[in-house]
Amino acid sequence: MLTMQEALARLTAYWTEQGCLIVQPMNTEVGAGTLNPATFLRVLGPEPWRVVYVEPSVRPDDSRYGENPNRLQTHTQLQVILKPDPGNPQELYLGSLAALGIDVAAHDVRFVEDNWASPALGAWGLGWEVWLDGLEITQFTYFQQAGGLNLDPVSVEITYGIERIIMALQDKQHFKEIEYAPGVSYGEVFGQAEYEMSRYYLDDADIEANRRLLELYAGEAQRMIDAGLPVPAHSYVLKCSQAFNVLDSRGAVSTAERAAEFARMRRLAGEVAKLWVARRGELEHPLGLVSALEPARTPATAQTGDRPRTLVFEIGAEELPPAELRNAREQLLRLVTEGLAGTRLEHGEIRVFGTPRRLIAVVQAVAAREEDHVRTVRGPKTQAPEKAVEGFARGHGVTRDELQVEEFNGVPHLVLRRNEPGRAAPQVLADVLAKVVSGLRAAKNMRWNDPKLAFSRPLRWLTALWGDDVVPVAVSTLAAGRETRLLRTAVPPVAGIASAETFLETLGVNGIVADHEDRRELIVVGAQDLVYPDGRIDVRGEAALIDQITDLVEQPLPLLGTFDEGYLTLPDAVLTTVMRKHQRYLPVRDEDGKLLPMFVTVANGPVDVDLVRTGNEAVLRARYEDARFFYRADLDTPLADMKAKLGRLTFTDKLGSMADRAGRIGALARQLGDRLGLGSAALDRAAELVKFDLGSQLVTEMTSLAGVMAKDYALHAGESRAVAEAVFEAELPRNTGDALPRTIPGALLSLADRLDLVAGLAATVGLPTGSSDPFAVRRAVLGLLAVHRSTPEFAALSLTEALELAAAAQPVPVASEVRAAVADFLAKRLEQALTEEGQPIDRVRAVLPHFARPSVADSLLAQLAAAAGDATFASVAAAILRARRIVPEGTPSAYDVSVLKEPAELALHEAVSAVSLPPAPDLPRFVAATTGLVGPVSTFFDDVLVMAEDPDIRAARLGLLARVRDLGDGLLDWPQLRL
Amino acid sequence: MLTMQEALARLTAYWTEQGCLIVQPMNTEVGAGTLNPATFLRVLGPEPWRVVYVEPSVRPDDSRYGENPNRLQTHTQLQVILKPDPGNPQELYLGSLAALGIDVAAHDVRFVEDNWASPALGAWGLGWEVWLDGLEITQFTYFQQAGGLNLDPVSVEITYGIERIIMALQDKQHFKEIEYAPGVSYGEVFGQAEYEMSRYYLDDADIEANRRLLELYAGEAQRMIDAGLPVPAHSYVLKCSQAFNVLDSRGAVSTAERAAEFARMRRLAGEVAKLWVARRGELEHPLGLVSALEPARTPATAQTGDRPRTLVFEIGAEELPPAELRNAREQLLRLVTEGLAGTRLEHGEIRVFGTPRRLIAVVQAVAAREEDHVRTVRGPKTQAPEKAVEGFARGHGVTRDELQVEEFNGVPHLVLRRNEPGRAAPQVLADVLAKVVSGLRAAKNMRWNDPKLAFSRPLRWLTALWGDDVVPVAVSTLAAGRETRLLRTAVPPVAGIASAETFLETLGVNGIVADHEDRRELIVVGAQDLVYPDGRIDVRGEAALIDQITDLVEQPLPLLGTFDEGYLTLPDAVLTTVMRKHQRYLPVRDEDGKLLPMFVTVANGPVDVDLVRTGNEAVLRARYEDARFFYRADLDTPLADMKAKLGRLTFTDKLGSMADRAGRIGALARQLGDRLGLGSAALDRAAELVKFDLGSQLVTEMTSLAGVMAKDYALHAGESRAVAEAVFEAELPRNTGDALPRTIPGALLSLADRLDLVAGLAATVGLPTGSSDPFAVRRAVLGLLAVHRSTPEFAALSLTEALELAAAAQPVPVASEVRAAVADFLAKRLEQALTEEGQPIDRVRAVLPHFARPSVADSLLAQLAAAAGDATFASVAAAILRARRIVPEGTPSAYDVSVLKEPAELALHEAVSAVSLPPAPDLPRFVAATTGLVGPVSTFFDDVLVMAEDPDIRAARLGLLARVRDLGDGLLDWPQLRL
Repeated sequence: MLTMQEALARLTAYWTEQGCLIVQPMNTEVGAGTLNPATFLRVLGPEPWRVVYVEPSVRPDDSRYGENPNRLQTHTQLQVILKPDPGNPQELYLGSLAALGIDVAAHDVRFVEDNWASPALGAWGLGWEVWLDGLEITQFTYFQQAGGLNLDPVSVEITYGIERIIMALQDKQHFKEIEYAPGVSYGEVFGQAEYEMSRYYLDDADIEANRRLLELYAGEAQRMIDAGLPVPAHSYVLKCSQAFNVLDSRGAVSTAERAAEFARMRRLAGEVAKLWVARRGELEHPLGLVSALEPARTPATAQTGDRPRTLVFEIGAEELPPAELRNAREQLLRLVTEGLAGTRLEHGEIRVFGTPRRLIAVVQAVAAREEDHVRTVRGPKTQAPEKAVEGFARGHGVTRDELQVEEFNGVPHLVLRRNEPGRAAPQVLADVLAKVVSGLRAAKNMRWNDPKLAFSRPLRWLTALWGDDVVPVAVSTLAAGRETRLLRTAVPPVAGIASAETFLETLGVNGIVADHEDRRELIVVGAQDLVYPDGRIDVRGEAALIDQITDLVEQPLPLLGTFDEGYLTLPDAVLTTVMRKHQRYLPVRDEDGKLLPMFVTVANGPVDVDLVRTGNEAVLRARYEDARFFYRADLDTPLADMKAKLGRLTFTDKLGSMADRAGRIGALARQLGDRLGLGSAALDRAAELVKFDLGSQLVTEMTSLAGVMAKDYALHAGESRAVAEAVFEAELPRNTGDALPRTIPGALLSLADRLDLVAGLAATVGLPTGSSDPFAVRRAVLGLLAVHRSTPEFAALSLTEALELAAAAQPVPVASEVRAAVADFLAKRLEQALTEEGQPIDRVRAVLPHFARPSVADSLLAQLAAAAGDATFASVAAAILRARRIVPEGTPSAYDVSVLKEPAELALHEAVSAVSLPPAPDLPRFVAATTGLVGPVSTFFDDVLVMAEDPDIRAARLGLLARVRDLGDGLLDWPQLRL
Repeated sequence: MLTMQEALARLTAYWTEQGCLIVQPMNTEVGAGTLNPATFLRVLGPEPWRVVYVEPSVRPDDSRYGENPNRLQTHTQLQVILKPDPGNPQELYLGSLAALGIDVAAHDVRFVEDNWASPALGAWGLGWEVWLDGLEITQFTYFQQAGGLNLDPVSVEITYGIERIIMALQDKQHFKEIEYAPGVSYGEVFGQAEYEMSRYYLDDADIEANRRLLELYAGEAQRMIDAGLPVPAHSYVLKCSQAFNVLDSRGAVSTAERAAEFARMRRLAGEVAKLWVARRGELEHPLGLVSALEPARTPATAQTGDRPRTLVFEIGAEELPPAELRNAREQLLRLVTEGLAGTRLEHGEIRVFGTPRRLIAVVQAVAAREEDHVRTVRGPKTQAPEKAVEGFARGHGVTRDELQVEEFNGVPHLVLRRNEPGRAAPQVLADVLAKVVSGLRAAKNMRWNDPKLAFSRPLRWLTALWGDDVVPVAVSTLAAGRETRLLRTAVPPVAGIASAETFLETLGVNGIVADHEDRRELIVVGAQDLVYPDGRIDVRGEAALIDQITDLVEQPLPLLGTFDEGYLTLPDAVLTTVMRKHQRYLPVRDEDGKLLPMFVTVANGPVDVDLVRTGNEAVLRARYEDARFFYRADLDTPLADMKAKLGRLTFTDKLGSMADRAGRIGALARQLGDRLGLGSAALDRAAELVKFDLGSQLVTEMTSLAGVMAKDYALHAGESRAVAEAVFEAELPRNTGDALPRTIPGALLSLADRLDLVAGLAATVGLPTGSSDPFAVRRAVLGLLAVHRSTPEFAALSLTEALELAAAAQPVPVASEVRAAVADFLAKRLEQALTEEGQPIDRVRAVLPHFARPSVADSLLAQLAAAAGDATFASVAAAILRARRIVPEGTPSAYDVSVLKEPAELALHEAVSAVSLPPAPDLPRFVAATTGLVGPVSTFFDDVLVMAEDPDIRAARLGLLARVRDLGDGLLDWPQLRL
């Protein structure tokens, strides 16, 4: 059996053979190998660097007293930095797994998108987690920035999670069982430290002492920066980080403190980085400079035919994230289409395909040559002075005689006509395709060893064939050829392509399914087959997940795994959240929708099915074991105890703890309930409990289960179903499209939650602007509106009044301007929600004055939709608008009736006086009530001069019209309507 | 070329093969691998533990900005712990050198005594530094205590200094040139950190911040101890240590603070250790228990002769320290002699020999058997009741008839006579020799894997032969045989011994010179041959060093090495201090005593001479380079700047800085000079400069050069020879037997220095008691007395008066009791010095009242010696003592002459009145002045009854005698004299 220490030695030896230096772990506590100066400082600047080292990584927050099978306060990382990117880091990495004795062809090794960012270090990169049969064993990142500085060259960071790898290789269920050295277990060696350091981090570390340490460290870091010494400064930044982590694990950090400390660390780290770069420059880069990669040479090619042929163009990439892959396919289609449109090359249908490792465009019947073409260059007018004419001819290297005459806008000009013969297809295509490659862009772009390209992940090869001929594309360091790469585990891993026409076939023969829909079909059908007849996959419900899985593989191989039935006692949401979010497994249910103890996972390529199944099952078991550990602990905890923990979770420094916030939510919900006559015992109890599950261990681990667990724990604790439902529904909706509360207590709590959030934050950190919305206030307000709209009982509730109550309950004053800004923010969100629902913007704006009671807006919108095309409504509206248009703003609707003499005036006066408006906004009733005005208004305008010379008469007539105008007030913002 | 990272990997792999675990370096800064919990905690308790790890060891004090070729603020240790001692750790260690590619037979690998103690950790052990061709490459220690706890089992700690080893293997002159990894130098990788961390430790670390860190760390350590968590507590103890080291390297730690911090750390470390042991017990020792070694079986033996034969007994040891070896030889002789004396075995001469690895006793002509012997058991008196007689007979298993009669003190008793045949020699010797082994004790004893033995270093084998036969000795786990071990590099490394008579020959044939004198001769003659004809070795001057070298080798091989003449510009004392103290090299001088650029070192056994010479030369070059670095830096520093640094060296917290102390010394010397009329410009200037060289880099490194360098630097700075001499002499005498000042300014400064020391310390920390004398006050006072005595100009100076001046200058009050205690202390030291010089104790005591002017005591002693046997002196003394004896204490020397009537009375009165004493203490003149009293005193006692009945007469007669008595006062303490 490979011991853990032997595994470390083998990996170290392997990477040393790849030219890595070995350094030692950092001699101050660090949370990850990335923080070691051998990474953080060395990735900066232009010097090459290859290093491998072990880093015991301290995560106070992961302390579990050594009881959790998979989580340790100190776990062992093996860290590799390759600077610059060697061009084949994934292949080198796979070699390292082989060095550990892992048969990468038999296992399912996958590169699953995982982008890394450390706000505290001003650092980020793009890359993957590497999965071994579903187990995350490595973090693989192309470092793009550190200390706020762009990295050039880019470094490849490979971080192995050693305990996990060894547990998998040794088939151990608990880290303590790892055979660390021959005959000695991990627990025997490190068990006591694991327990005691957990005690320190979770229970015993002195908060005040660690606060002071943090300040002293930050002071020394700053002093060293001022002294121009990045190395000791960095060391103190690391100590800051550790002290902060200790405070955090002791629950002593509020959100605001966190933000402030992160900002400080980011600033310090940034200054350290700048200093380091400057110092290395002063030292003239002791390790030398990275040598630039040579641009690729354009492949020599000769055209071998003149019939139209298929064009195939494959851009080979490292594993693209599913979302980026989708975009890239569309982009490829657009770029190829536009590119070809810019040429005179005839061609047939253009299709695009994509897998995680390749983007493919196939163009039918691309002509062998462009058509010939005459190019006309316009010269001076024929009447132009001779000098100008001669200059033109000379400028184009022709004689005066070779110019011809052509009219432009009826004016005769001298022109030069040139016959331009069409170019051969390969040359034309080479230009087009080169632009396609350099034009590709992702939502998040990165750089690798190629100086001129940027994309979601590195591009590593190009295959371009027109018929039998290579298209001589060369972009930066990449040159196209006629070979494609297959699965990395294929033997050999490349295949030659005979001609463009056989390309897809060659891929297919080698197992690679280029088409997304084909892969999806293989997955869906395969999965259903696997679970037949007992189970079924909810293909529609899991559509997003299936789409994602489809774009994680090139050759899908669905596998059925099972898990112990015992885990089914865990809540459904826990089980499926783990499957979907963490593992991308498809849950399997029976006819009645009950979860079955199985799952479908999709491997990539011809793996050893039993091996991969066993591995995935072990991963799921570990995750479920984890969840069960927390779940049981939570069930053993009285709800009040969980709730009490909220006192230790700070919401923001100015808005108090989560306990304070929950208290405000409960009180506000009850106030609103009282106002609306919707109070109940269930509401009262739910208001006491609301958010208690934030104090549970499971929700601390899996925050997306907030509410779900509240319900579960409440029921287990003997609370009534109504109470349990309410504490669950208080969290709804969790995102766009999520379910809404169906019970009154739930709806009240949900509303109160969101009102409290927006009122408090508006008064302290301000409302979101631009793309910055760290507290997701926009989503909360959208939820608030949705809950109000979906609850008929709330129709009478004014959100502005509710907001006043929420504002009054804040621990800080909420100024009237702030309250007004919040109201405006609500109105804007309602406008957004309604237009996104497809309502015409004019109508939305017309009903927006009712934003505080959105159900009114809803019903008015419905009535407006119904009234569309209705002549009566149109005439009423026209009458009112006509009145509005003529009456100057500010004109009162009062008038002296005695001044009115004209019959049309008097008729209108009578008609207006006869109108009896409905008590609540109601368009049909309003129309019915006002339709009698239409005739008198019309006659009035026909017969009467409103702007009479006599000021009294004019005033009375305007007052009369103002009364007409005002009839529509409080119903709609009439001028917004496009009639 | 073996790179450094490859060397670490090879050593790690080698020790892993020996069953060691691999752990990671500590993730907080530590000064040595010993502090890592994998050593400090794991050596405690009964669990087995074998571990190897790398430890980057941080020594802030060794910071040199990366400029010193051999010194780094962070150097790399490779640490190995073997618990329990495997029995052959040295051999395993040599195997590890072979694993590095070092040919241990060609090189001179030596185990040179080096005992390790960490007061801050309450830890100590005995062992060696391992030298490779004179270069210290490893620390090898048998751990005896940690955290104040005795270790059982004992652990072997092996600490490799990797940079040094690699520099030697790669033949590099500067650590930065080390090839760290293929194509990458150490300097390129670590140079910047070395510079910047040096800056932090030497210049930029904030003292106040580090003080606060130290307090916070100590607080957390204590809190964790209180919480019963040794692991985090230990981690905070380490942080304390680092913070302390930072303060120290910033020059911010006074002697008193150091003591206080060490005490605190020791206490904390002790509590951590106790807690760890307790916790491991609670956890039921997860790693199991060390299994006890089996006691050795007594070898089977058969006696094969009856003639007297030689006995040879060899006790094989690991390298014994030279001083212990000397003692052990003497002890062996005594134990064997006494042991044999306790038997009835006849034998001839007993001789003992010893080398570092063996103690040998050879006894000539040991008889084959003890003589037979009749043992007599005394029974009851013959008249005793029959019952008693029968009881006696029965008790001895004989019948009444077998008893015989013998008289005791004339009383006939029944006795039992038993013939006891003599035992065979091997049996008798086995008992004797077993007791010899278990009876051996060293000045400092240690324990190893043997449960019942304790000695200076582990005993590993026994060879015991009587003639051809093995003597069946078995002691604890050791059993004697007939094989001896040769040099470790011999092939094979053991030799069988045919018979006791051939033992020494067999050793000799194999190159081992058992006899100290033989080895010494080989060294002396060999060395002289090597340096002939140009140079010579000062055999007499270097006698102590030669003796030491002689006991460092078994097969001496003197080698001549040279060094660059350029280094001869360094002061002679610097060069020879390095040679003698650090390297045990013999300096070589020319006829005129001028140093030559060469040295003799003595290797052990048949090494590759050129290789070993080259290695030793490289070591010396590195040390000289170091020294030259400091020397040049010092020469570039104005004396005033060096002196200014004394302000940063704290003497004690209550007595101020070294600058304060130097100021007091200078002032006191000038005061004393003024009093004695010995003032001079040279004194004034020397008083300004005194001790300035403590601020030099060279003296900071090599404190034994204090004074020597002061003179050198003063001369270089253009000071007069008198001033330079004075600042040198101020430090004299540095130890017993050292030279004394020969100039007046030097003597005054020396005196002032020591007076200041004793006055200040007596008033603050107290005078030394028992064996505790941390400030070496005893030695200082002995020096003070020696200086006074050797300076005729000081004869008039009273040390008690001088002490008053010194006391008055202290920054603390020096109470009169303290001053009295110091005076008493001075007197006691004078008594000690004089008796050690061979003066009879009675005379010493007789002159001790003159301790304050010791030259008076000296001259009186000389006069007493001269007067010994002189009848006149004897009669004068007798007369005075006779008077003293009869006169009661307190009797005044006044009397009423008119009362005196008797002629003898009157004659005595006249004689007394006629005495004219010399002005200063002078025995001959005193005798001459008082010899006239002898007759009258004698007559007086013959004729006069002193105790007359008449009280007046009696009083007058006693008064007269008191006057005689008092004549001797102020000269001698007469009753002390044994005449």
